[in-house]
Amino acid sequence: MSPFDSSPEGNAGEPLREPIESYIAIINDLVTTELEATIPEAWFVPENLHKAMQYSLMAGGKRLRPLLVVAACEALGGSRTAALPVAAAIEMVHTYSLVHDDLPAMDNDDYRRGKLTNHKVFGEATAILAGDALLTHAFYSIVQATRRHGIPAESSLAIVEELAEMAGPRGMVGGQVADMEGEQGLTNLEQLRYIHEHKTGDLFIFSLLAGGRIAGADEQQLAALREFGTNIGLAFQVQDDILDLIGDEGKLGKKTGSDIEQQKVTYPFFIGIEASKSEVERLTLAARKAVLGGGFTDASRLLEIADYLMKRDH
Amino acid sequence: MSPFDSSPEGNAGEPLREPIESYIAIINDLVTTELEATIPEAWFVPENLHKAMQYSLMAGGKRLRPLLVVAACEALGGSRTAALPVAAAIEMVHTYSLVHDDLPAMDNDDYRRGKLTNHKVFGEATAILAGDALLTHAFYSIVQATRRHGIPAESSLAIVEELAEMAGPRGMVGGQVADMEGEQGLTNLEQLRYIHEHKTGDLFIFSLLAGGRIAGADEQQLAALREFGTNIGLAFQVQDDILDLIGDEGKLGKKTGSDIEQQKVTYPFFIGIEASKSEVERLTLAARKAVLGGGFTDASRLLEIADYLMKRDH
Repeated sequence: MSPFDSSPEGNAGEPLREPIESYIAIINDLVTTELEATIPEAWFVPENLHKAMQYSLMAGGKRLRPLLVVAACEALGGSRTAALPVAAAIEMVHTYSLVHDDLPAMDNDDYRRGKLTNHKVFGEATAILAGDALLTHAFYSIVQATRRHGIPAESSLAIVEELAEMAGPRGMVGGQVADMEGEQGLTNLEQLRYIHEHKTGDLFIFSLLAGGRIAGADEQQLAALREFGTNIGLAFQVQDDILDLIGDEGKLGKKTGSDIEQQKVTYPFFIGIEASKSEVERLTLAARKAVLGGGFTDASRLLEIADYLMKRDH
Repeated sequence: MSPFDSSPEGNAGEPLREPIESYIAIINDLVTTELEATIPEAWFVPENLHKAMQYSLMAGGKRLRPLLVVAACEALGGSRTAALPVAAAIEMVHTYSLVHDDLPAMDNDDYRRGKLTNHKVFGEATAILAGDALLTHAFYSIVQATRRHGIPAESSLAIVEELAEMAGPRGMVGGQVADMEGEQGLTNLEQLRYIHEHKTGDLFIFSLLAGGRIAGADEQQLAALREFGTNIGLAFQVQDDILDLIGDEGKLGKKTGSDIEQQKVTYPFFIGIEASKSEVERLTLAARKAVLGGGFTDASRLLEIADYLMKRDH
């Protein structure tokens, strides 16, 4: 094996480099395989719990957070193999948040990505516990995987700590609560930013930092990854707000304008559609700048991901 | 400070040693103070989330799991100060499990220990998220505290790993699912044992191992703590089954015989009340034996705790 195997670009490999869409699809497949291995059939857990965990993990999705773990790791010359189990773990955390978010007491959604939500298939109690199990198992997976791949214990601990911080009350869960309470009406853009930054942004940042730590990133590189994540996280969410207003229903797989119907307050509501588009561009540019000054081995995939997220239509 | 300060017994300190009830009360107070410090008022989280987390953490309870962390650590000559934050973290995990367990979709309880359950005060959505936040924050606390107290990173990682395993799908959550499904009727004692061992026992074992690891336990000592925890965990649960059948309602703070009314299958249901009592004694004896052969600095508090749990009437 060449030492460049972990970097899809290589030094003289321009012709071998797949386009970003293929790269995303490849990582998606690898993460799915990793998830299947992490929750194997033979697991000694009650069958329904196992099935409920599996069901939502395998319900598809963009697997963007795992992509960020792998891309950040590879941007620093780190190993894809070592990044994948941590990438799978963050997908478990994301999936748990969706399962709980869909519950009748929360958003009360019957469908997600065209499939019945977890509680519609397994019942509310099992859905709550499957979410709990996915969150808890993510921490287990991270410790197991980082040890298996020889990541220093201090780095693994930092990954665990950042996940707990960014998925916890000051992070994603805080964003969820603020979002829920915001349904009674947000009064300013700062409140909406808080929700976007924590509900979505924090796990983006975590994914990038984790990828960096697996590759042995230094403080400057970690700071660049954090800056990159902060900007693409918010850009992603503003773009979501825009697409939900004016996107193509066929491509999105959901009705547009639903935010208006639900009287949900979004970026375009506060600053208008054109200013929202400019904001996405400004944030993407800031993300590009952060990653270009980060001292990475190869920043190109991260740059491509930033552009891809900005231009996406679903 | 004398090097024996962390051990309440000391070498020549028989007269200074407080009875077990006082020891339990002291640890309970210290853990409560620690929990208050861990979730300070100034926390930058939505106010309702903060209040909901605080509410259930401060709703009282025996704080048995934290007691086991501290007692195991001290039995090996470890520092109480280092054990307390981890003790508080395990109480967060226990509390999260109660908050989710009480939800309408699960046990649908309006009261716990004479106080309204979390969802009755804050609503279902916030209760679900407060549970999620407590679980996640427990991992954060452990990493922060073990680093602050100079615990080697490898030991901290082992604590995180064991918590994730024993609170996760193969541990406590697995036990919860089995318990829920068992409400449709258990057919044999093995199924009941599975529930007791995982729903309750696993966190007991985790607490003891964590205390041991903080004190720098070797493999023999960890094995002894595990054996001790397995036995007192099951003894505790069988005793619970017995008390629920024949205990003093005033002391228990709940109606006895409720398991029969709810047609809940318990140890006495399968083997009768006398055999259940013998089983508690047998398990307590096995626990005592494990801890006496564990090579501890001072096993006396653990022995007292085993006896205390067996003799308790509430």
